[in-house]
Amino acid sequence: MNKKVLSVLVDNKSGVLNRVAGLFSRRAYNIISLTVGETADPKFSRMTIVVSGDDDILEQIIKQISKLEDVKDVEVLKNGESVIRELILVKVKADQSQRQQLVAMTDIFRANIVDVAKDSLMVELTGNPSKLEAFIDLLDGFEIIQLVRTGITGLPRGEK
Amino acid sequence: MNKKVLSVLVDNKSGVLNRVAGLFSRRAYNIISLTVGETADPKFSRMTIVVSGDDDILEQIIKQISKLEDVKDVEVLKNGESVIRELILVKVKADQSQRQQLVAMTDIFRANIVDVAKDSLMVELTGNPSKLEAFIDLLDGFEIIQLVRTGITGLPRGEK
Repeated sequence: MNKKVLSVLVDNKSGVLNRVAGLFSRRAYNIISLTVGETADPKFSRMTIVVSGDDDILEQIIKQISKLEDVKDVEVLKNGESVIRELILVKVKADQSQRQQLVAMTDIFRANIVDVAKDSLMVELTGNPSKLEAFIDLLDGFEIIQLVRTGITGLPRGEK
Repeated sequence: MNKKVLSVLVDNKSGVLNRVAGLFSRRAYNIISLTVGETADPKFSRMTIVVSGDDDILEQIIKQISKLEDVKDVEVLKNGESVIRELILVKVKADQSQRQQLVAMTDIFRANIVDVAKDSLMVELTGNPSKLEAFIDLLDGFEIIQLVRTGITGLPRGEK
């Protein structure tokens, strides 16, 4: 029962996302995060799916995904052999006194402040999941108004 | 026929992604990009969906999404009133001579080089869609080995 990151190359057309995601939901297998966008060649999209659950069932699902006509390639991104990244935007309540503290935190994490309002700041942060978790943990004393994350994306390291 | 960005707050459970995406595919409405991940409260996830197509059909789909039991909120992120971001990872073929040129480009775009192999570099870049497109356009003379993007995520600006 550990998290797995799947990278799936698919035809860029209507319904493909649904057919792939449907194979998980039919087995009541929860998708933790999913991202999908066009590749350099707009004929194809790449989905990055993070799941956790029984390994045997996952293996069956991967086999079924590979057989779909719209699916060109399925690959499991292995920890350590892959670059894994995620982007979050978080809007935090901050009065004058809290603002300085937040600015200092964003500096340490190399985050960017992307919007400022009278009583709030919006921060953009990119990194691997543990960096993002560390930042969110540090926000514990603040009121988070909204938080949105892209979900994980990744590519294998090296020549491949 | 212009791009719309939807932000959908949903229950974080199996099958929700499928029910929402299914409403688009049933009308043969293509999803350009989709991201989904947990919010600050792990009971909920937020989906950001970019679509393009007929406005009337989209309005009907939004109404149907709003009626789903697992859907807590649907909002259209308006250009100019929202912060819109995306993350890409791109692996580019680069020999010694091309490497310097790539490093200079990543500096200009404040991108990060996240992996180096003998004949390739992996670049991570975050920004709004037009910045990312400009970077990808500049890669025209290089061979892109792999490119993956998270798809767009965003939050409304200001206090809200």
